[in-house]
Amino acid sequence: MLSKTYTKYIQSLHHKKFRDTEDVFIAEGSKVVMELLRSTTISCEMILGLAEWMHQNEPAIRKYYTGPMQVIEQYELEKISALTTPNQLLAVFKKCKKATAIKGKICLMLDTIQDPGNLGTIIRIADWFGIQSILCSENCADMYNPKVVQSTMGSLSRVDMIYTNLAEWMKKNNKIKTYAAALNGKNISELKGLTEGVIIIGNESKGISAEIMQLCTEKITIPKTGEAESLNAAVAAGIILSHL
Amino acid sequence: MLSKTYTKYIQSLHHKKFRDTEDVFIAEGSKVVMELLRSTTISCEMILGLAEWMHQNEPAIRKYYTGPMQVIEQYELEKISALTTPNQLLAVFKKCKKATAIKGKICLMLDTIQDPGNLGTIIRIADWFGIQSILCSENCADMYNPKVVQSTMGSLSRVDMIYTNLAEWMKKNNKIKTYAAALNGKNISELKGLTEGVIIIGNESKGISAEIMQLCTEKITIPKTGEAESLNAAVAAGIILSHL
Repeated sequence: MLSKTYTKYIQSLHHKKFRDTEDVFIAEGSKVVMELLRSTTISCEMILGLAEWMHQNEPAIRKYYTGPMQVIEQYELEKISALTTPNQLLAVFKKCKKATAIKGKICLMLDTIQDPGNLGTIIRIADWFGIQSILCSENCADMYNPKVVQSTMGSLSRVDMIYTNLAEWMKKNNKIKTYAAALNGKNISELKGLTEGVIIIGNESKGISAEIMQLCTEKITIPKTGEAESLNAAVAAGIILSHL
Repeated sequence: MLSKTYTKYIQSLHHKKFRDTEDVFIAEGSKVVMELLRSTTISCEMILGLAEWMHQNEPAIRKYYTGPMQVIEQYELEKISALTTPNQLLAVFKKCKKATAIKGKICLMLDTIQDPGNLGTIIRIADWFGIQSILCSENCADMYNPKVVQSTMGSLSRVDMIYTNLAEWMKKNNKIKTYAAALNGKNISELKGLTEGVIIIGNESKGISAEIMQLCTEKITIPKTGEAESLNAAVAAGIILSHL
C-alpha cells in the first residue's frame, strides 16, 4: 500500500516548485517510461505500477533499472497520476544534467513557448532532426511539466534543454549566428546547408520579443502562398529544421 | 436577456448531432468571428456579445453583417460558451457549402485525425500553403467542433473540407496520384515541383490504415537524422507541404 506521505510527495511533483526543490520529475505510461529507462543521462528512482503491468514488464525493466518497484492499486494510481486517464504505471526520475556544445551545431531557441503541448512537440521535432540543444527563455513551459514529459514520448532524454536569459546569452555568444522566424525575413530555403546557428521560435500569439528580434543576425520566413495569418510555433520549427 | 430555449439551443450546438441537424455551428472571440464574418462562403445568423464589445465593434461588424445582434451578460455568455474562458462574444454561423475541384491541385487527405486541436492546426497549415481542399475520413474530428473552429483562427472559411469514405474516393479517382506519409517511403524532397496530387496523413498513433496504404500511389518520408519515433501529424503535414 502506498503511504500517505509518499502519495503527497508524488502529488507535489505535479508542481514546478517541488520538482525544482526535489530535483526529480514524474513520467507515466509504458512507452514514455521505458524510453526514459533506456536513457543514459536520466536515472530512475522509483517505479509504481499495477500488478499485471509489473508482472509482464519486470524482465524488460530489470535490464535497465535495479532500483525499487512497488505494486499499487488502480485507485492509488489515480490519486498520484497527472493524467486524466492514468496509464498502468508512474515513475519518478532524477532530472538530467547534460551540457551539449552549441558551437558548430544547429540549435533551437524558444522565446516564451508557454503551452506544454507545444514545447513537448518541439522537443520531439528536435529529436527527429538530430538537434541536441534547445535554449529556452526562463518563462517557457517547464520541460519537466507532466504534460511536456508525456508529449515528448521519450525524446526528453536526448535533447539538452537550457533555461536562460536569451538576450544575455545572445550578447555573450555574439559570434554564433541567430535566425529569427518572422513574417518578413528571407526565404528559409536560403538556409539550406547551414551547419551552425540558432533558430529562434517565438510565442504563438506575440511572436519573438522586440529585444531578441533586435539582437538576432537575420530574420527568416516560411513562404506563404495562402492566407492564414500565422503557423503554429511547433509546425514552424518543424518546417524550418526540415529545410536546413 | 437570453431566453432559456435559445440558451439550450446554443448549448446543443456543442454537440455534432445537433450541429448536423441544425446545419449551423458556433464560433467565439473577436478574432475568429471577425474572420468568419468577412468570408463570402459562410453566413452568420446571430451575434451575442457583451455590451462593451458590441458597442466598440458594431461599426466594423455592420460592414459585413446585417442580421440580429444581441447584448448579453457575462453569466449568460458563460452558460453558452464552449470555452473554458469565454471571450466577449459568441456567434452562430450557417455551415458553408463549397465544392472545390481536386484535379490539377495539391490537396490533403486525413485518415482518422481525431484530435480537434490537430485538425484545426492542419486546416491553418493548408490555408498558409494555399491548399483549397482537405479530404477527411468519416471518423476524423468534426470541422465544426468548437475546438476545431477556435484553433483554425478563421482559416475554416477558406479551406474546403470533404468528409467521405477515403478508400472509395481513391478507387473512383484512381488517376489522381496519392502520396502516403510513412516511415519507409521516398524522400519528400523528390516531390518538389508537384502540382497535382493528394498527400495522405494518418492517425498519430496508428498511422495510415492498411487499406488506404495499399491504395496509395507512393509512400513518402520526412528524412530523419535523430532518434524520435514519429512526428506529430500536423507537423508532418506542414513539413511535407513546405517542400512541394
